[in-house]
Amino acid sequence: MDRNGGGGSDPADVQGQAKDAAFRPRFMEVPTFLRLPLAETAAGLDIALSGIPFDLGVTNRPGTRHGPRQVRDLSSLQRTRHPTMNVEPEAQCRLADLGDVKINPFSIEDSVARIQAFYDAVRGHGARPLTVGGDHLTTLPVLRALKPDAPMGLIQFDAHCDTGGPYMGQPLHHGATFKLAVEEGLLDPKRCVQIGIRGSLSEAGQWRFSYDSGMTVVPIEAYFDRGWRDVIQEARAVVGDGPVYVSFDVDGLDPIYTPGTGTPEPGGLPMHEAQRMIRALQGLDVVGADVVEVSPPFDPTGNTAMVAGTILFELLCIMADRLNPAP
Amino acid sequence: MDRNGGGGSDPADVQGQAKDAAFRPRFMEVPTFLRLPLAETAAGLDIALSGIPFDLGVTNRPGTRHGPRQVRDLSSLQRTRHPTMNVEPEAQCRLADLGDVKINPFSIEDSVARIQAFYDAVRGHGARPLTVGGDHLTTLPVLRALKPDAPMGLIQFDAHCDTGGPYMGQPLHHGATFKLAVEEGLLDPKRCVQIGIRGSLSEAGQWRFSYDSGMTVVPIEAYFDRGWRDVIQEARAVVGDGPVYVSFDVDGLDPIYTPGTGTPEPGGLPMHEAQRMIRALQGLDVVGADVVEVSPPFDPTGNTAMVAGTILFELLCIMADRLNPAP
Amino acid sequence: MDRNGGGGSDPADVQGQAKDAAFRPRFMEVPTFLRLPLAETAAGLDIALSGIPFDLGVTNRPGTRHGPRQVRDLSSLQRTRHPTMNVEPEAQCRLADLGDVKINPFSIEDSVARIQAFYDAVRGHGARPLTVGGDHLTTLPVLRALKPDAPMGLIQFDAHCDTGGPYMGQPLHHGATFKLAVEEGLLDPKRCVQIGIRGSLSEAGQWRFSYDSGMTVVPIEAYFDRGWRDVIQEARAVVGDGPVYVSFDVDGLDPIYTPGTGTPEPGGLPMHEAQRMIRALQGLDVVGADVVEVSPPFDPTGNTAMVAGTILFELLCIMADRLNPAP
Amino acid sequence: MDRNGGGGSDPADVQGQAKDAAFRPRFMEVPTFLRLPLAETAAGLDIALSGIPFDLGVTNRPGTRHGPRQVRDLSSLQRTRHPTMNVEPEAQCRLADLGDVKINPFSIEDSVARIQAFYDAVRGHGARPLTVGGDHLTTLPVLRALKPDAPMGLIQFDAHCDTGGPYMGQPLHHGATFKLAVEEGLLDPKRCVQIGIRGSLSEAGQWRFSYDSGMTVVPIEAYFDRGWRDVIQEARAVVGDGPVYVSFDVDGLDPIYTPGTGTPEPGGLPMHEAQRMIRALQGLDVVGADVVEVSPPFDPTGNTAMVAGTILFELLCIMADRLNPAP
Amino acid sequence: MDRNGGGGSDPADVQGQAKDAAFRPRFMEVPTFLRLPLAETAAGLDIALSGIPFDLGVTNRPGTRHGPRQVRDLSSLQRTRHPTMNVEPEAQCRLADLGDVKINPFSIEDSVARIQAFYDAVRGHGARPLTVGGDHLTTLPVLRALKPDAPMGLIQFDAHCDTGGPYMGQPLHHGATFKLAVEEGLLDPKRCVQIGIRGSLSEAGQWRFSYDSGMTVVPIEAYFDRGWRDVIQEARAVVGDGPVYVSFDVDGLDPIYTPGTGTPEPGGLPMHEAQRMIRALQGLDVVGADVVEVSPPFDPTGNTAMVAGTILFELLCIMADRLNPAP
Amino acid sequence: MDRNGGGGSDPADVQGQAKDAAFRPRFMEVPTFLRLPLAETAAGLDIALSGIPFDLGVTNRPGTRHGPRQVRDLSSLQRTRHPTMNVEPEAQCRLADLGDVKINPFSIEDSVARIQAFYDAVRGHGARPLTVGGDHLTTLPVLRALKPDAPMGLIQFDAHCDTGGPYMGQPLHHGATFKLAVEEGLLDPKRCVQIGIRGSLSEAGQWRFSYDSGMTVVPIEAYFDRGWRDVIQEARAVVGDGPVYVSFDVDGLDPIYTPGTGTPEPGGLPMHEAQRMIRALQGLDVVGADVVEVSPPFDPTGNTAMVAGTILFELLCIMADRLNPAP
Repeated sequence: MDRNGGGGSDPADVQGQAKDAAFRPRFMEVPTFLRLPLAETAAGLDIALSGIPFDLGVTNRPGTRHGPRQVRDLSSLQRTRHPTMNVEPEAQCRLADLGDVKINPFSIEDSVARIQAFYDAVRGHGARPLTVGGDHLTTLPVLRALKPDAPMGLIQFDAHCDTGGPYMGQPLHHGATFKLAVEEGLLDPKRCVQIGIRGSLSEAGQWRFSYDSGMTVVPIEAYFDRGWRDVIQEARAVVGDGPVYVSFDVDGLDPIYTPGTGTPEPGGLPMHEAQRMIRALQGLDVVGADVVEVSPPFDPTGNTAMVAGTILFELLCIMADRLNPAP
Repeated sequence: MDRNGGGGSDPADVQGQAKDAAFRPRFMEVPTFLRLPLAETAAGLDIALSGIPFDLGVTNRPGTRHGPRQVRDLSSLQRTRHPTMNVEPEAQCRLADLGDVKINPFSIEDSVARIQAFYDAVRGHGARPLTVGGDHLTTLPVLRALKPDAPMGLIQFDAHCDTGGPYMGQPLHHGATFKLAVEEGLLDPKRCVQIGIRGSLSEAGQWRFSYDSGMTVVPIEAYFDRGWRDVIQEARAVVGDGPVYVSFDVDGLDPIYTPGTGTPEPGGLPMHEAQRMIRALQGLDVVGADVVEVSPPFDPTGNTAMVAGTILFELLCIMADRLNPAP
Repeated sequence: MDRNGGGGSDPADVQGQAKDAAFRPRFMEVPTFLRLPLAETAAGLDIALSGIPFDLGVTNRPGTRHGPRQVRDLSSLQRTRHPTMNVEPEAQCRLADLGDVKINPFSIEDSVARIQAFYDAVRGHGARPLTVGGDHLTTLPVLRALKPDAPMGLIQFDAHCDTGGPYMGQPLHHGATFKLAVEEGLLDPKRCVQIGIRGSLSEAGQWRFSYDSGMTVVPIEAYFDRGWRDVIQEARAVVGDGPVYVSFDVDGLDPIYTPGTGTPEPGGLPMHEAQRMIRALQGLDVVGADVVEVSPPFDPTGNTAMVAGTILFELLCIMADRLNPAP
Repeated sequence: MDRNGGGGSDPADVQGQAKDAAFRPRFMEVPTFLRLPLAETAAGLDIALSGIPFDLGVTNRPGTRHGPRQVRDLSSLQRTRHPTMNVEPEAQCRLADLGDVKINPFSIEDSVARIQAFYDAVRGHGARPLTVGGDHLTTLPVLRALKPDAPMGLIQFDAHCDTGGPYMGQPLHHGATFKLAVEEGLLDPKRCVQIGIRGSLSEAGQWRFSYDSGMTVVPIEAYFDRGWRDVIQEARAVVGDGPVYVSFDVDGLDPIYTPGTGTPEPGGLPMHEAQRMIRALQGLDVVGADVVEVSPPFDPTGNTAMVAGTILFELLCIMADRLNPAP
Repeated sequence: MDRNGGGGSDPADVQGQAKDAAFRPRFMEVPTFLRLPLAETAAGLDIALSGIPFDLGVTNRPGTRHGPRQVRDLSSLQRTRHPTMNVEPEAQCRLADLGDVKINPFSIEDSVARIQAFYDAVRGHGARPLTVGGDHLTTLPVLRALKPDAPMGLIQFDAHCDTGGPYMGQPLHHGATFKLAVEEGLLDPKRCVQIGIRGSLSEAGQWRFSYDSGMTVVPIEAYFDRGWRDVIQEARAVVGDGPVYVSFDVDGLDPIYTPGTGTPEPGGLPMHEAQRMIRALQGLDVVGADVVEVSPPFDPTGNTAMVAGTILFELLCIMADRLNPAP
Repeated sequence: MDRNGGGGSDPADVQGQAKDAAFRPRFMEVPTFLRLPLAETAAGLDIALSGIPFDLGVTNRPGTRHGPRQVRDLSSLQRTRHPTMNVEPEAQCRLADLGDVKINPFSIEDSVARIQAFYDAVRGHGARPLTVGGDHLTTLPVLRALKPDAPMGLIQFDAHCDTGGPYMGQPLHHGATFKLAVEEGLLDPKRCVQIGIRGSLSEAGQWRFSYDSGMTVVPIEAYFDRGWRDVIQEARAVVGDGPVYVSFDVDGLDPIYTPGTGTPEPGGLPMHEAQRMIRALQGLDVVGADVVEVSPPFDPTGNTAMVAGTILFELLCIMADRLNPAP
């Protein structure tokens, strides 16, 4: 199937323009992430995009199971070339949308296993995963599937550290992902940075694990006091040259950008600075990335998904350019 | 690509249930019409579904260019088997979603040509077209592509006859489709029925062509006075046994069902009766059908597209069952 | 100012079509009720349309102060000729939109006085008033301004009788209008009909005045049991040949049609039957009419105002046709 | 705490009107179901209202966990006395809102146990439960808690029979409630009626259990053909004089009334007829009732919850009047 | 009634976790401000929260009568401990939600009297008031009830000075509050600061009183030029050590944060800086505070109320910590 | 017609306050831009406001044809005097709203001709045009009508340079306006500044014309790095003292302010800085200005139009003050 994303042999193309993206109106076609082709497996791909329609890990508002679809729809607004970096992902890498992981809507544990199996296959083909969630628990099985030789680094944009303990006896939930990942040896806390942390707490030690384990936590107040350049420079220093995973929880942004999310926290990151920070990661060995916590039912305007689609493209650009830099 | 619509080899399916629709959550996957497989051409298909993202034919509110995408999304709520008729389209016919016609967003004339070319190809493969619009002008090039040996019959659900003359000098617009189709010999007015007509008029003779040419017009007042059974019985009598096209303009329904449309007219058809009327067409030689005038920007709830997806399934059932009746 | 509603000398009209309503796109221009011309006074008019942006009379949800503006906007969807009656108001009568009554947002009493003064002027010019509210209290000063020689008849479409006593010591509120009008000798209760009454009650005798005074009350249950034809036939019999006022509270309809209102009551009148009932009043001596209780903030879709605009046109048609019947 | 629902000793009441519901604006106060007093236990109550904020049983769209809160808010629009029956629940019975069952957001099984324990306590106090869901699975533990001496009767308003088998291996889900209840001996299928059934099916035998077990199924087509009076008369005949549970799934209504639900099916019950049918149950021994499947995130207008609040009041009236008939 | 807010004795709590806030899902229960317990009077409280559902003081868009309810609902998203200050209000002070003042929906004057009487009672119990409005006029009777020995200081976040004269003859409206409060000797203008002032003016001297009386006015332009730290430092210097009232009008923020308000003015305060400024008031003798002008009908998303709930928690933290500082 | 905008002789004005804008509630009246009087022609005007309800030039989402109406409605929130500059447009200049250009909804070319003819007439009367679009193509015929003696300067706030070539063979579209204007000699590229440019690109050279022709392009990254003061200072230097046109595309702002637009690009200009930049243009010879790309169907809240109304007032202030400076 060609890059036109499944629209068929296009009998209506009477002007020979089928190969020119500029002549394909953005509102048409079955929507895929960033209008990439669909693929059945990751075979032959450099970067594999996929969705995880899952929300059983949430503690409050559900709805992220509907996230991947809407991000596919709104990511059509992205064009093919980065505005400031000399990067054009499709020209530099082999990319496709693999569709969604088939989760089990009645079981956290089974769903986590299914997610890991899906990404095991992706890794088996040698592709790097770029994911649209789903709640933040979905990052855990992706990290597991990456089976790093050594604990990886992490750059996390988020309002919450997500390093809490069990909730009502459940260890697997969207507020515990990164504690579990560290404990499982998937992440090296000394190479983890969490940016944008804020919001009232249920107890004084809610995010103690982040601090105690040696993660670098950048509360939103420090973020604004220091400025984005200083913060992301420190982040690069912390993660160093090794493999790093980038996880973008849309609630890291202020809810004016992404109201469609389960645990919004007013007073968050500005979008234009988030974009600048991602670009500043150019050159890092980003082995995987995700955009999570888009809950469409809480934003009927679709703006949250539009913003998530923009972040998705920014992440894709740094991943693609590292794999095969533009000349 | 199998019926799962592009979701890949599904490495996460650990229970061997991939073939069972019941185990594929409806909120997942790249959305296609009724969760049918995508296909590049109509080769080998009995019925080919496609979208026409077009709104240049409207005289008032635009937005139907965004219709096919949202109907794809919301038609996921349809399951595979009809509730009252012994019909299961996918079991009886070969079906697929061909994607969208690539229209020209700057030209009515070129778009109409592209639509016809697309459907010429569909007909070339021997498939019957089932379309999601797009404004009602899109029906004209589909009828042209059907190239009937003799003028066809028509059953049209609509608030407006759409048999007007040029508007501001433009003969091709969504209020003129069926006048043009009759004049071009595509439709036999004696075998045309228009159901649900209502709404204030710009002039006394606005829909005169329908009456003068011999179409059977059922104004909404007569509809309610007579009841749906009597009306659809007459419709069947009028169209007879020959080939017939069924065109469902969502503004035929009351806007409480389908507010997302360009020219809503309060006081329209009830949804449950529209469903009954379509079912009453079982057995007719429906050579093509469409659902048109879904304009998502005017209904952020998506309910209009959900209703359109339901109508789409009803239409598919009668088309499929005629081609290959269930045992 | 000509019928084009203030659009200026229209230098862009290069085809000489300025007089043809069909060539004036409905989405353009400063919106007036039904795209009628604006006028500064009612001098020379047969029927004067105006708005009363008032909501101080409500007991629950406010917002009807924003009603007239949105009804102006959405009434643009009405064309000039009735679909089933041989009526074209602008061809039969002199009509204009007088703008809004300037109410006092801090005083019920002063606003009621201002409304009456406005309509005194309208009546002074011999024009009949057709009003868009505003809450239902606004009908009272209009009735006062009509200064009938004898108590008038009333046909009221409503979920509530609005014949209650003072509320928190305030006699002037939207639930007391018609009790006050009867007590003031403006209405003859024997010639009053209230159609669509329903909803839970604060006390057993909440609407006792209607019954005790001799009004004909048609609860929604009786309405559905008898059918619209029987009900409106009785209504015509009750009001007889004398002057009658028609008051249409949009909460008489089911809230599926008009969710943007202050006291919605599920289980109400169907829109298409409301239209039929108004048409059945053709020939009555309707000396004034109104559509009230449109509260836009409670319906961001604008559908409530669209429905109200349709009702407004139906009312105008029967008023205009009585004054100067079509040949 | 008095009937004013927690507003305190009301130092602002300077006119001695605290006891008069008419003087308590409906938009104020902490919202409780129907503005009833809060209570900590069901001790001393005839009928206990409560909410079950649960949505883990859904197969598609989540969000019913947010249902009870919004129904509390919008049920403020209900007044105290029934419009057509001589019933005033608070005058006839002791009523209170017990708040919500504390569910476990990570476990279907634990939540079902918690729900049953809550209702065991309610029954222990001799009160009859009236519940706002929550998805339809929540009805199962309520039925269990009722511990009927003999299988009970059921009147169910719904688009789906909810008598399916396990889904992805999970026997406890919102489409299986009534099969399980019959199998557990809680319901007598010969005394069960399901009204409004419709919608496409996943397989021919999806609701076979209903038919095979002897339930009376009234598909929507039969419903419209026969009329509400005939249907509810049959329902009364089927359930007879014994104890009966009434379960109202808001998706039984057409989605124009209740778009905020997880599995909407166009072409459903009209609201005014649903009200008439509930009233026709007056005198039945209704030992418990519920309104379920309100999912606020899918209806930002709140209309779904408003309709549910109206149904809640109708149900309360028949329950209260049976327990202590008005003189 | 315990901290669980009215949910009863919780028979469903089968794990003994009733005292642990972490185990009480935030979407459940009758909503109170910040999930605090309800109380009938302020007896024994340090800080009393209450709502004033009032909007008769507005000059343009109404709807703030619906504010307290929605802020109760959305303030559930707040947890119990401040993210950056060592403050946990419930651990440091006795707090409760007193419900709403029972206003008179037909009279500004009577409502103002009722509000004052309510707060007189609060003060009689020695509690400090923390209020959710209502329009900004509601601050006046609260200030009156505080009956300060000497005129108090004021820190006001707002787009408008609200120091205007009568409007249409009405001295009591939401644009005149602080002029009246100064004239009544309740506030010392030399100790008043108004931050965020902007927006077009009706006349050059619209806010002259602020300047002439000696208030410190910080227009938004100066605010952005100087930065939040400098501005709030000056504010602290201006108000000094004496008693001060903090009034937060949500229109002080940019409408991207709080679109649900009556007189939005684009170009306003950023939320994260507003939070920092409130925190910088730690230690001040804040004798009362409020969050006003939340109008839910103009923001169906609820984001305005979510932001207001966050501000409410920030205000509570500084009030509680001053009364009983954390160790 | 006096300044009250068509409300008639105002018989209800019983207090002689008709001339005082403060006493005219902002929610009333037929809405005109900024509540200015309507006029049929530009005769005698200094500045003529008008709308262009046009969206045929868009490449993606339509809907700007509905822009002028909603901006009229929401611009009612603007008062008469600027908050920081000593400017009161109505006191300094003769102003009116001319209504809308009557476009041809089926033809780009004819519409462009009609727009130019309309503005030719405006210029014929010596008035300066201030326009509300419409998509950005509408600026081209306005520039043509200005018939400058020498190429003009341009200050453009926008996410896109709009200097592209033909799209699908159509040279006239909203992404090509300024290339065409330069090529036609209407603009001097050396005196053109484009501020806020961003967003992914379809090809590397998409906006090459801007750079090659000598326009000053300020990408959003440079904008944030340099600060608004530096940028607008450079802009003034670039345009110099000669005639300049100011074009404000609302997608230049971040979509949090203006989601109702066709090609939103996250990460844009802050509103308060846009206001400061416009004010910094005081004294420039602004011969015309516009606010374009407001698409109401994509923002049901109306906030986009409210922001556009605010920008409209800012633009009017600098235009009016240059023509007749305040004393």
